Amino acid sequence: MGTHDVDRTPVTVIGLGHMGRALADTLLREGYPTTVWNRSPAKADDLVARGARLAPSVADAVAAGALVIVCVTDYAAVRELLDPPAGTLSGRTLVNLTTGTSQEARDTAAWAAGHGAEYLDGAILGAPTAIGTPEGVILYSGPPAAFERHEAALRSLGGGTAYLGADQGLSALYDASMLGLMWGILNGFLQGAALLDTAGVSARTFAPVARQGLATVTEWLAGYAAQIDEGNYPVLDASIDTHLAAMEHLVHESESLGVDAAFPRLVRALAGRAVADGHGGSGYAALIEQLRAPAGSRP
Amino acid sequence: MGTHDVDRTPVTVIGLGHMGRALADTLLREGYPTTVWNRSPAKADDLVARGARLAPSVADAVAAGALVIVCVTDYAAVRELLDPPAGTLSGRTLVNLTTGTSQEARDTAAWAAGHGAEYLDGAILGAPTAIGTPEGVILYSGPPAAFERHEAALRSLGGGTAYLGADQGLSALYDASMLGLMWGILNGFLQGAALLDTAGVSARTFAPVARQGLATVTEWLAGYAAQIDEGNYPVLDASIDTHLAAMEHLVHESESLGVDAAFPRLVRALAGRAVADGHGGSGYAALIEQLRAPAGSRP
Repeated sequence: MGTHDVDRTPVTVIGLGHMGRALADTLLREGYPTTVWNRSPAKADDLVARGARLAPSVADAVAAGALVIVCVTDYAAVRELLDPPAGTLSGRTLVNLTTGTSQEARDTAAWAAGHGAEYLDGAILGAPTAIGTPEGVILYSGPPAAFERHEAALRSLGGGTAYLGADQGLSALYDASMLGLMWGILNGFLQGAALLDTAGVSARTFAPVARQGLATVTEWLAGYAAQIDEGNYPVLDASIDTHLAAMEHLVHESESLGVDAAFPRLVRALAGRAVADGHGGSGYAALIEQLRAPAGSRP
Repeated sequence: MGTHDVDRTPVTVIGLGHMGRALADTLLREGYPTTVWNRSPAKADDLVARGARLAPSVADAVAAGALVIVCVTDYAAVRELLDPPAGTLSGRTLVNLTTGTSQEARDTAAWAAGHGAEYLDGAILGAPTAIGTPEGVILYSGPPAAFERHEAALRSLGGGTAYLGADQGLSALYDASMLGLMWGILNGFLQGAALLDTAGVSARTFAPVARQGLATVTEWLAGYAAQIDEGNYPVLDASIDTHLAAMEHLVHESESLGVDAAFPRLVRALAGRAVADGHGGSGYAALIEQLRAPAGSRP
């Protein structure tokens, strides 16, 4: 606790919001010599009390770490902070845990390469309280050698640490994909809770039924995934025509009860487009063709 | 197989689409004296060969069953078929497995009561192939005595048979709720698969990651449900403000890659409304207030 192990890589954490503080706190606890920097230095007080060094400037902070972790508001802030001392980045590994898009990650990777730095992009799934625990999930993408070099320090930040591949855009894409899935589940659950509420059924009564439904649908994903990869969509559960008829019921049920029907209408519209494209007799996975980027527009 | 047990209730199945045939087939296999009727009598040929009796009219079919199961296109078809011989329904139990809304179920219950029949409304979750198997899920609502009287026959139709309560609207509401949740999961998964496809990540690679995400979010539902029931939404994972910022990223990521962004935009719009209503600092479950029916409009 707070005692630096001389064998451990010096690490710098730039940006001390809730997440940055949790990262620095974990690194200190794990014995890494930790330098921190924040625009408002008072945010570092607790960390300094536990053994962190507060750098007087971003340039000084970068110079202090072989591994430089940045976690700020957005990618514009990353560049605003790191462009002036970019010459100092050479030979270091920059790990950017700021939330952004895959294109921002790839652009920042190119910028870092231009300054002689190795670059890993990362995405944190979950809350600062999970950092440094088995539940903490951080996804990394970039050169495999960079991940391997700092794997011990990076794994200390969360038990769910995963390396995705060389393309720096992957962590942002997985992050967005997992968030979309999460909101799909949560909004689907809330829609059901709102419908059942009209008959006085509590959400607590619905939750275990919903859990069972989630377990059932989870089992379908592997089959859907195989169909998507093969571009061939035989019916597994029900045809899109059958789904569309049931969607009409969900829209009608929601509208007639005064429950917000935007989500049911969206689901129906998407299936309607697939039917119009000749996929009425296909399985539900054929909807991927309505969602994905036209072939010509893919990077 | 095909041998009627003299102790078993005579059952009638009206409507021999895929689902009706699966129902009648299961009842025959379980030894119930089974009478069937369908507008096109040829659909009954296989069932008659296995011991079913084909009724010459709907009135005759109703008269033959103590338990009368109807499974047709919609509630209008139910009434069109059963209004002329409604006098025959008295003293029988009518189980309606036709898909419809909670209001249609309640209206049909009132109509059946007016003719002296007990009425259970039911909703079949899943495909005809699951009928008569442990995976078959049929939800029933209506007078508890009616369910108990015919519980053995009804349970033979699927291992996931469940009785929900006296309000005949419940089975349609649960059905719609489970469907909405299913589409939330599936569309969320497809959105992620479409995003990852832009970087050449296969859906098969995404599926196990998505499974893990589903398992994580599943664990949150009980906490959300308790908050919804209590009308109090402290932050569990992240505030709606934090969710909204992440939703901006999903919208931007989808749009910039040419992936359909309708679902991300809908999710963002809903959260934006909650923030406008002063719920930016609340947990995600506060979104229920954006979805549910205004108090004055609830039945």
